[in-house]
Amino acid sequence: MRVRVVVAYDGTDYSGFQRQTNAPTVQAALETTLAQVTQEEITILAAGRTDTGVHAVGQVIAFDTAWRHDLGDLRRALNAVLPADIAALEVEEAAPDFHPRYDAHSRRYRYTLHNATVRQPLKRRYSLHIAALLDVAAMQQAAQALVGEHDFATFGQPPQGLATVRRVLLAEWGGEPPHLTFDIEANAFLYRMVRSIVGTLLQVGQGKMDVAKFVAAMTACERRRAGPTAPPHGLCLMEVKY
Amino acid sequence: MRVRVVVAYDGTDYSGFQRQTNAPTVQAALETTLAQVTQEEITILAAGRTDTGVHAVGQVIAFDTAWRHDLGDLRRALNAVLPADIAALEVEEAAPDFHPRYDAHSRRYRYTLHNATVRQPLKRRYSLHIAALLDVAAMQQAAQALVGEHDFATFGQPPQGLATVRRVLLAEWGGEPPHLTFDIEANAFLYRMVRSIVGTLLQVGQGKMDVAKFVAAMTACERRRAGPTAPPHGLCLMEVKY
Repeated sequence: MRVRVVVAYDGTDYSGFQRQTNAPTVQAALETTLAQVTQEEITILAAGRTDTGVHAVGQVIAFDTAWRHDLGDLRRALNAVLPADIAALEVEEAAPDFHPRYDAHSRRYRYTLHNATVRQPLKRRYSLHIAALLDVAAMQQAAQALVGEHDFATFGQPPQGLATVRRVLLAEWGGEPPHLTFDIEANAFLYRMVRSIVGTLLQVGQGKMDVAKFVAAMTACERRRAGPTAPPHGLCLMEVKY
Repeated sequence: MRVRVVVAYDGTDYSGFQRQTNAPTVQAALETTLAQVTQEEITILAAGRTDTGVHAVGQVIAFDTAWRHDLGDLRRALNAVLPADIAALEVEEAAPDFHPRYDAHSRRYRYTLHNATVRQPLKRRYSLHIAALLDVAAMQQAAQALVGEHDFATFGQPPQGLATVRRVLLAEWGGEPPHLTFDIEANAFLYRMVRSIVGTLLQVGQGKMDVAKFVAAMTACERRRAGPTAPPHGLCLMEVKY
């Protein structure tokens, strides 16, 4: 039976999602727990490979198992054994050929800012503190230029192959000050694309780049035209749609 | 000059507020930073001594200093030197005899619950996960019995002396499910009083104690009638009023 699991994690203490030798990863923690709970050797498939320090509340994984009990029991067993910074939110049976990455229609990420003069210790793990007053209207206007099918080579490199064209379905600032959120949904993302976009939008928000220059940077398809890449701890994989 | 500072901290990695030998405390971190920034030996006064693991966004401290520059400069210097889990939110001059504990009119604490079947890793540091469905109406009704001047001996011991009578000004459940918040404001609190009250209210919410029995436990003034003390990580000192 193929099982589909929606996974949440605090990425702070992991060297990203994908398994590596000699570094703690979310994939390794999940596979170790699955082996312990099912007594099988299980390799998981995942919708996306989040970077070191990036969080998730809607990562999707799939695996095959001979589990004979209720899937609610599997969810409870996984959550009892998983470390406190990883949880299995939903556990469901999937079609035998379900692939969380290839079958995904789109992914949505959220980047969270804490925009206030003084930093706030209780927000520091899941948001980026920006002391400078941001021009949110300018950032919103620049973000709108991202929507549609574009070559995003300015904002990242492809995880494989050479194609840098992606289709952005949504790119929008929201939230309640001092907490600002940037939601971006696309069919797929380049490596570090969201963080590169956020870092460049922050240049716009701080008046270091105007909206026209942001659009010119994007259409130039030159990596060096992007702003500094925003740090990972403000980023969270929210949802994968099928 | 006496200076009043509103302090926020993530209590996770501290053995409470008050200075101790051989354990990291918020007071020690603040005094070390003040010594470094002002080049004076400074002992601080504080509004309340939060326990190990308890957070704050509105702790108030005061100290005397010969600081000759702008107080905005002092705030910036403190926040540059303080560890990431402590911040000075507001820095103001106070009356020479201002005492953050004795002059306080009331304190407000908030206890946060994450009430959902599955735990949520990104909420785990600042809220208590409760999987059982809670009867919030019953918890609200029981909480109302706390308001007013009562002997709260059931819910804690006095930090000094013998008096266990306190005046509760507000005791109210709120929040948006799955996040529930319990706000309680009182002239002062007994040692572990908020966590003992929350633990007892959770017995009510889970149907293990009815509202009448909660009121009877309170009026009995017997420590053994309280429910288990709720863990510290859901608790935050929100505000001290003067």
